[in-house]
Amino acid sequence: MSVEQQNIKIRSAVLGAAGYSGAELCALLCANPYFELSYAFASAGRSSEPFAQLYPRFQQQVDILVEPWTDERVETLDVQVAFLALPHEASEAIAPLLLAKGIAVVDLSGAFRLKQADLYPKYYGYAHQHPELLAQAVYSLMEWQTTPLGDLVSVPGCYPTACTLALLPLLKADLVTKDCIPVISATSGVSGAGRKASLSTSFCEVGLNAYGFFKHRHRPEIEQNLGRKVVFTPHLGNFKRGILATCVVTLKAGVSAEQVAAAFQHAYASKPLIRFTKNSPNVADVAGTPFCDLYWQQDGEQLVIMSAIDNLLKGAAAQAMQAANVRFGKPETAGLLAGANL
Amino acid sequence: MSVEQQNIKIRSAVLGAAGYSGAELCALLCANPYFELSYAFASAGRSSEPFAQLYPRFQQQVDILVEPWTDERVETLDVQVAFLALPHEASEAIAPLLLAKGIAVVDLSGAFRLKQADLYPKYYGYAHQHPELLAQAVYSLMEWQTTPLGDLVSVPGCYPTACTLALLPLLKADLVTKDCIPVISATSGVSGAGRKASLSTSFCEVGLNAYGFFKHRHRPEIEQNLGRKVVFTPHLGNFKRGILATCVVTLKAGVSAEQVAAAFQHAYASKPLIRFTKNSPNVADVAGTPFCDLYWQQDGEQLVIMSAIDNLLKGAAAQAMQAANVRFGKPETAGLLAGANL
Amino acid sequence: MSVEQQNIKIRSAVLGAAGYSGAELCALLCANPYFELSYAFASAGRSSEPFAQLYPRFQQQVDILVEPWTDERVETLDVQVAFLALPHEASEAIAPLLLAKGIAVVDLSGAFRLKQADLYPKYYGYAHQHPELLAQAVYSLMEWQTTPLGDLVSVPGCYPTACTLALLPLLKADLVTKDCIPVISATSGVSGAGRKASLSTSFCEVGLNAYGFFKHRHRPEIEQNLGRKVVFTPHLGNFKRGILATCVVTLKAGVSAEQVAAAFQHAYASKPLIRFTKNSPNVADVAGTPFCDLYWQQDGEQLVIMSAIDNLLKGAAAQAMQAANVRFGKPETAGLLAGANL
Amino acid sequence: MSVEQQNIKIRSAVLGAAGYSGAELCALLCANPYFELSYAFASAGRSSEPFAQLYPRFQQQVDILVEPWTDERVETLDVQVAFLALPHEASEAIAPLLLAKGIAVVDLSGAFRLKQADLYPKYYGYAHQHPELLAQAVYSLMEWQTTPLGDLVSVPGCYPTACTLALLPLLKADLVTKDCIPVISATSGVSGAGRKASLSTSFCEVGLNAYGFFKHRHRPEIEQNLGRKVVFTPHLGNFKRGILATCVVTLKAGVSAEQVAAAFQHAYASKPLIRFTKNSPNVADVAGTPFCDLYWQQDGEQLVIMSAIDNLLKGAAAQAMQAANVRFGKPETAGLLAGANL
Repeated sequence: MSVEQQNIKIRSAVLGAAGYSGAELCALLCANPYFELSYAFASAGRSSEPFAQLYPRFQQQVDILVEPWTDERVETLDVQVAFLALPHEASEAIAPLLLAKGIAVVDLSGAFRLKQADLYPKYYGYAHQHPELLAQAVYSLMEWQTTPLGDLVSVPGCYPTACTLALLPLLKADLVTKDCIPVISATSGVSGAGRKASLSTSFCEVGLNAYGFFKHRHRPEIEQNLGRKVVFTPHLGNFKRGILATCVVTLKAGVSAEQVAAAFQHAYASKPLIRFTKNSPNVADVAGTPFCDLYWQQDGEQLVIMSAIDNLLKGAAAQAMQAANVRFGKPETAGLLAGANL
Repeated sequence: MSVEQQNIKIRSAVLGAAGYSGAELCALLCANPYFELSYAFASAGRSSEPFAQLYPRFQQQVDILVEPWTDERVETLDVQVAFLALPHEASEAIAPLLLAKGIAVVDLSGAFRLKQADLYPKYYGYAHQHPELLAQAVYSLMEWQTTPLGDLVSVPGCYPTACTLALLPLLKADLVTKDCIPVISATSGVSGAGRKASLSTSFCEVGLNAYGFFKHRHRPEIEQNLGRKVVFTPHLGNFKRGILATCVVTLKAGVSAEQVAAAFQHAYASKPLIRFTKNSPNVADVAGTPFCDLYWQQDGEQLVIMSAIDNLLKGAAAQAMQAANVRFGKPETAGLLAGANL
Repeated sequence: MSVEQQNIKIRSAVLGAAGYSGAELCALLCANPYFELSYAFASAGRSSEPFAQLYPRFQQQVDILVEPWTDERVETLDVQVAFLALPHEASEAIAPLLLAKGIAVVDLSGAFRLKQADLYPKYYGYAHQHPELLAQAVYSLMEWQTTPLGDLVSVPGCYPTACTLALLPLLKADLVTKDCIPVISATSGVSGAGRKASLSTSFCEVGLNAYGFFKHRHRPEIEQNLGRKVVFTPHLGNFKRGILATCVVTLKAGVSAEQVAAAFQHAYASKPLIRFTKNSPNVADVAGTPFCDLYWQQDGEQLVIMSAIDNLLKGAAAQAMQAANVRFGKPETAGLLAGANL
Repeated sequence: MSVEQQNIKIRSAVLGAAGYSGAELCALLCANPYFELSYAFASAGRSSEPFAQLYPRFQQQVDILVEPWTDERVETLDVQVAFLALPHEASEAIAPLLLAKGIAVVDLSGAFRLKQADLYPKYYGYAHQHPELLAQAVYSLMEWQTTPLGDLVSVPGCYPTACTLALLPLLKADLVTKDCIPVISATSGVSGAGRKASLSTSFCEVGLNAYGFFKHRHRPEIEQNLGRKVVFTPHLGNFKRGILATCVVTLKAGVSAEQVAAAFQHAYASKPLIRFTKNSPNVADVAGTPFCDLYWQQDGEQLVIMSAIDNLLKGAAAQAMQAANVRFGKPETAGLLAGANL
């Protein structure tokens, strides 16, 4: 019996479909034989408009009307899952409404990523209104996730995805010195800043520069994942999609190249979206793909790990799709890799 | 019965798999449920190497060894179709060998595009050795192709694809003045120049400039398609993929907007890879897609038609895949559009 | 006596110093030994801020405070010349105030470019309030300007500069057929759209696309310069600075290559900012320079002329500087070319 | 008496004028009122050609013939100074010939940068043939140079310039912990790889990737400058010009923001080519300028220092010009900054 003959697709909605991540998610859902994109919503202020008018690239691929969201819509929303590609505070407010209706939530914002509510004022600039949900939310870095996902799935941030996938195998294998503070320098494509027009993301203004020193909201998320402090310096680069993270750690004395390789193999040998590359990864080779490319080089006790993802895919929409696939018992990479649908 | 259950895939080979178009074709064949990429060949001088080493982007997507081609390989090549993404003269020499073995040839070079052998010295710089094949070859601009494709399929050039799709509906509908010489200004991404390193395609040298005035080999191909002379000025732009063609014609007196629209509708209403766009197409919206985006604006007797394609896809590999799908009785867009495989 | 010993610099003000053209002009004035940048103004709503804060690129090069403009400032403005890099309607309103105070005006907007007031509603979207100034204004395409500039100088638009310099020599030499409508396809870098953040100039949205078919406000300006109708299709390209114009005309029967070359030589042999290039010009080679690069290729009666400028320099600020140099009796290229100051 | 009236310019030659750094140097020499570009040489294999044919950008700015170099030319070379923008081994071989003729040498290669001859085999891949010259050569990082330059000037590498300017003030002020190994992640524009066509610098291949882990030849140069080991990871970014270096160090306990600022002020307050920026520097703001932009942010004992230069200017040609200005008693920034010539 083929997928299509089964004919029972999981009905889904995307909130925030006008943004870059939400739009990618709409396209992924349309290409996934197990899901149906039943609704696409943008913010309340907008009028309804065809998706392809917002994103001509997807004309004849994504055929849906993007409607303005209002909270009343939750009453009649006949879907099993809602993907929230919204500002943090909007996600935080809407998620409980959906959960109350028995709709699973896959949230792409930072609203439910941190376990400590008291970090929100400092890094997100607002006090969390639903701290009880922080415990309930399951953080869906699927390569490290072992427990069931439940009804509130919190999709990792783009930088934390790249950095955690690079560093966690080494920490889990206990190869890094106790007092080492990993130094991470990461560069994101401009789509990471969202679609809203601003001077800093105007074509003529973009070059290569660092920003958010010590205060970026992805820092505590990385630290939560790794269980230690990091120095994290994000940069804005002049490309559209992709993140390249350069991570430096100090290994314990005597750690061998074989031990390092074994740590990565142990962590990812069976993971379909991790690629170990023969040379240092290039953002151009992951852009448009759901993969995380990893590579490392050692010099005595110094280890540099390179990690590359597409910020909109493995760093957002594809990772959400991956989590939803697993959450609903479908093949992990359905809709993400050709030939992965069966 | 699902595609996979049928389990009889069309065995295929790609010659020229190390080039940009050949590599895209390898990826398309791997994603097409009706085809199997059985062999990938590069030029004789190279040693065998895994495809993903040449194109890290396709690691875990295209898993094949790229072997050096020698003509003896034709003896043991158990495939139904060979795709030639080769230099013109190499295609011209190898195609007859394959045809003699009963292997269908889909040629992406210019070797069999022109019907007049005497144009080859002038525009291609060499005398054609197999003029008899020029008559046999079927030019696979599928939106206009009505006869069976046969065993020697000649895939249109990238610029001619964009320009012919833009202009032929108007000429077929007899809306253009008899003495109008269409003026075409077209800009291609750098991948159109191939993968071989050269100063003119070095990162630091690329800006935006015209080239090949009046002498580009795609000029006679466009003129053959349209049945009239054109002024064709190609440009090299600082993007990787895509072609945007700006075509200007003089309409017969009194031709209405409705007549123009009808001409395009008549030609393409049922064609799955043509999109009529709401605004002027952008190369960024066709890059990575198999579509040709069309748009036009009229001012009295002056008509500007915009046409955008991905030079490596609709302008090369996807168009070859489209032709092969049709040639072997499969859905026209199999492997090209999500959901098009059944 | 050296320039510096003379010690009498022409005092000047730039209105619209926060925009791209205005900023370039501030830098040119600071580098010009004959001029002093006495004031820099931005729009009324802003607070005063150091120029280098707006444009870090010019830190230690342009040391001035950018102040909010209000019309009362005209009362105490002790300058000989004011450069207006303002929106059209603002220029139109402020120019008379300055002229009334005896301050020469060099206007970079379109406010005084067209001689026919009735074209403003159609192409600029507003009715001109000072039609009497249209006659007074002198259009400063300096390569063609023969009369004194007077007190109201109207600097040509960027596209009209590139296109007129390309086509006027041929028309003046009477080499083009009477009924030929020149077909111009021109691509501008994104800075041409100004510094205001907008979706269409956001980094992730820019590719290559046409816009403003038949209705662009530079069309009537080009037509006014050439004395005939044109088909003008502007494009937005993914580079920061520069314009490349591809211009196609039909020559009269029998016009020779020598006649074409002579027309260009006659027009520009003594013009310091025109360069005849050996190959088709590249926008990358004019970006950051005050030059217009010209090149042409003929095929029988068809002639393609390529023209490249930096839209912010020869297309705006450098052309304004050039005009001001001449207007005040200084070397034409002072501040524009190394070694041109004496 | 004006510069031009003095009329005694320093005669100079550029060897390696066909490369990117050499070409920039030719342009700087032509714009410097104290120097005359008397000769421009390229490698022996080439035929003579006008500079502007190699670099159309400089047409009408640099008017000289680029001749093939052969060692016999040294006999008749009537110049006071020769700039060598050559491969390391060529510089090493030619410098002694020039010195023997009493011609001062300003070398832009790495041939004379390292003091320890035994580092050359490991990092440069060849054994140094003139170790005695390593002691004689003066390393011209002018912001730190206090002794006379002598006749053999070794211009610092691009990455070492950016990194040393960022880190040395802190080390000189003794603010960094003794066992801190600075972690440097730096991204260079593609021009840093030179003009020779190669796959890795082809337009379609460039994205963002790291390279040269632990083995880059600029590592020992940085370590020599700083007097301590570093972890240096260079990257290739998709822009033409510029380097951005992100440097992380651990400060001694209790070091205050004031102490950090004082260290930088002390080092650079009087240095004309150092700019302290208000925000994190952007490569786009230094490209085309001779400046090094510096910025830092502290979080307890962690300090991130950002440093940006144009790799071809402050990282090569402008730094060579700066050194030559000082070497010959001219204003340090002559030819580099407007208004700096007197």
